[in-house]
Amino acid sequence: MRIVALGGGHGLYATLTAMRYLSPDVTAVVTVADDGGSSGRLRAELGVIPPGDLRMALSALMSAPAALAARSDGPTPHGPSAHELWASIFQHRFGGRGALAGHPIGNLLLAGLTEVTGDPVAALDELVAVFDIDGRVLPMSAVPLDIEADVSGLESDPRISRCIRGQVAVATTPGKVRRVRLLPNDPPATPEALQAIRSADLVVLGPGSWFSSVIPHVLVPEQLAALRETNGRRVLFVNLAPEPGETTGFSVERHLHVLHAHADVLRVDDIVVDAASVPAGRERDHLIRAAELFGARLHAGDLAIPGRHVHDPEKVATLVKQLCEGELSRYAVRAQES
Amino acid sequence: MRIVALGGGHGLYATLTAMRYLSPDVTAVVTVADDGGSSGRLRAELGVIPPGDLRMALSALMSAPAALAARSDGPTPHGPSAHELWASIFQHRFGGRGALAGHPIGNLLLAGLTEVTGDPVAALDELVAVFDIDGRVLPMSAVPLDIEADVSGLESDPRISRCIRGQVAVATTPGKVRRVRLLPNDPPATPEALQAIRSADLVVLGPGSWFSSVIPHVLVPEQLAALRETNGRRVLFVNLAPEPGETTGFSVERHLHVLHAHADVLRVDDIVVDAASVPAGRERDHLIRAAELFGARLHAGDLAIPGRHVHDPEKVATLVKQLCEGELSRYAVRAQES
Repeated sequence: MRIVALGGGHGLYATLTAMRYLSPDVTAVVTVADDGGSSGRLRAELGVIPPGDLRMALSALMSAPAALAARSDGPTPHGPSAHELWASIFQHRFGGRGALAGHPIGNLLLAGLTEVTGDPVAALDELVAVFDIDGRVLPMSAVPLDIEADVSGLESDPRISRCIRGQVAVATTPGKVRRVRLLPNDPPATPEALQAIRSADLVVLGPGSWFSSVIPHVLVPEQLAALRETNGRRVLFVNLAPEPGETTGFSVERHLHVLHAHADVLRVDDIVVDAASVPAGRERDHLIRAAELFGARLHAGDLAIPGRHVHDPEKVATLVKQLCEGELSRYAVRAQES
Repeated sequence: MRIVALGGGHGLYATLTAMRYLSPDVTAVVTVADDGGSSGRLRAELGVIPPGDLRMALSALMSAPAALAARSDGPTPHGPSAHELWASIFQHRFGGRGALAGHPIGNLLLAGLTEVTGDPVAALDELVAVFDIDGRVLPMSAVPLDIEADVSGLESDPRISRCIRGQVAVATTPGKVRRVRLLPNDPPATPEALQAIRSADLVVLGPGSWFSSVIPHVLVPEQLAALRETNGRRVLFVNLAPEPGETTGFSVERHLHVLHAHADVLRVDDIVVDAASVPAGRERDHLIRAAELFGARLHAGDLAIPGRHVHDPEKVATLVKQLCEGELSRYAVRAQES
C-alpha cells in the first residue's frame, strides 16, 4: 500500500509512526514555514528551507517499529539497532551555551547537504539512501515559506483584525486566528510530492498544529489540485484537543469549518475524530454536517494514549486499516435519534 | 596487508590515499591537539576532541580510488558515487557569515556523535559502519590535547627560549621551535590504536607538520612503546620541504635530529626522503648517520606531484610496495665515495 502523510512537527511524527505499521512505502510531505528554534536560526543564517520538521519525519521513519522489524541490522556495539541509534543522533541537540547549542544534529546535516546539493529533495533522498530508510521525506515546497495570519482579539475592539507574520507568532498569539496565508502566495509545489499524492492508495492529512502544519498543505495550489485528483483514500485526522494559542477553545466542528474556509474545494473520504470529543444532541448533528462539507463520512474512535492528548500510533494504525478494509460502520458517527 | 598510518592533517590525508592503493585494511591514528579553525571552536564550545583531522582521515578513506574501485555503489542521481559525494559532504564548510560559517559538516557530525556516544572511538566506528568505509580512523588519544613548545628567537637575545602554547601558535611562530610537549604530559593512548600498531604489517609515520602532527605520536608513552614492539615494517616519511613557521629552513637531517631528540628510543626500518632534498658530499654522510640514529636505512625517490611540495599518492604507494617486497636497493641512498 502506497501511503502519503501530510503534516508537520509532532503530529506528523505520530502519523508516520502509525503508518509504518501498515506499509513500508510511506512518503511524508512536510510543511516548510517554521521560523522558530533551530530551524529559524538555520533558515535565517543559510537561506535553506527549515529542516526541523523534515528531520523529525526522517527520524520517525527510521525509528518506526515496523521499519525495525523488517531489518536485520542486529545490535551495534552500543546496544540499540543502527536505525534506532541514528534516529536518536538525528534528534540529539548540541549542548553547551555556544553557537551550536540547541541545534539537532539532523538539522545541521540536512542544511549542509542542501547547501552541497543545492536541492532539498536530493539532500533528503541522499539521507534516505545512506541510512537505508524505507519510505521518503519530501518538503511541501523547495523554497522556505512564511505564514501570515489575520488575527482578531488583539485590540480592544474585537472586530478589528491584525495581520501577524511568522509561524511562531501565529502559533503563540493570544488572539484568535481567522485566516492564514502563505508567503509567497502561490508557492511552487514539490513535483515528487504531487506525484506521490496522485499515485497513493491512502493520503492522510493531520493531525497537527492546525494553522501552521495542516492548513498550509491546502494553500499550495498544485498540491490542493493533486489532493482532488488522487484516487487514493483521503483521511483527515482532527486533533485530539485544541492547542493553546492557535486553536484555543476550538471544537472539532470549528476545526473543520476553518479548514473548509481555506479550501472549499477540498474533498476527503473520511474524517477521524477522537470519541471523547464528539458532542451530543444538536452539536453532534452540526459536526456531521461539517464533515459533509468535505463529502466525508465522520468516524470516531478511542485514539489517545491514555491520559495524554497524543495519538497512539497503534490505535491509529488499527483504525485506518479497518477503514481501508471497508469496515466503515465500526467507527461511524451517526446523527442523534432524538 | 594490515597498514597503520600515523599523522594528522593534509600529510596524513595524502598517506591514507596512498596506502589505499596497497590494501583496504588501513587504520589511521590521528593527532588530537588542533586548536585552530572549526576544530578549535568545537573543542572550546563542546569540550570534544578536535574533529578536523579525524574528519579529513575519514574523507581520505572514503574517497580513495582503491576504496571506490572495490565498490559497486554506482552513480547516485547527482553524478558521483555515493562515497565521493559523502567525502565532499564531510569536507563541505558551511557558508554565510553566521555561527556555522566555516564548520565542515563532517566536523559537526563527528562532534555531535561524540556527544551522543560519549566516546570518540564509538562515534568514528559508527561513521565507518554507516558510510560503509573500508578501514578505521582512531584518535591518538580520547582526550583533547594541547601542544606546548619551547621557542627561541622571539627575544633579542637568541639564547632565551620562551614557552608558547597551542597548535596554531606553535605552527605559526616566527621563532625557532626547539622542543614540543603534550598537555597533559602523559596522555592516555587509545587501546584500539595500540592494538592496531602491534598487529600491523606496515606502520607509516609522517609526512606532516613535524612538530604538531608527527612528533606528537611519539610523545604518548604507550604509543611509543607499541611502535617499538610491533613486528610490522616501520617507515618514516620526511616532508618534501620545510613548512613556513614550524620548520622554516630545516634540512632533512634537522627533521631527523629533532624527532630523535623527542624520542631517542624510537626505531624505524626505513626513512624515505625526496630525491631532490638529498644533499651531496659530507652533508649526505651526515644525513645517512642521522637515519642510523633510528637504526634505519635511508631511501630517496621522486615522490612529489610535479611543481608542488605535496606527495603524489601513487608514487608513494609504488615506493612502499617495493620496499615491502624487499627491493631495498632501488631507492637506497649511499654514502658519497669521495
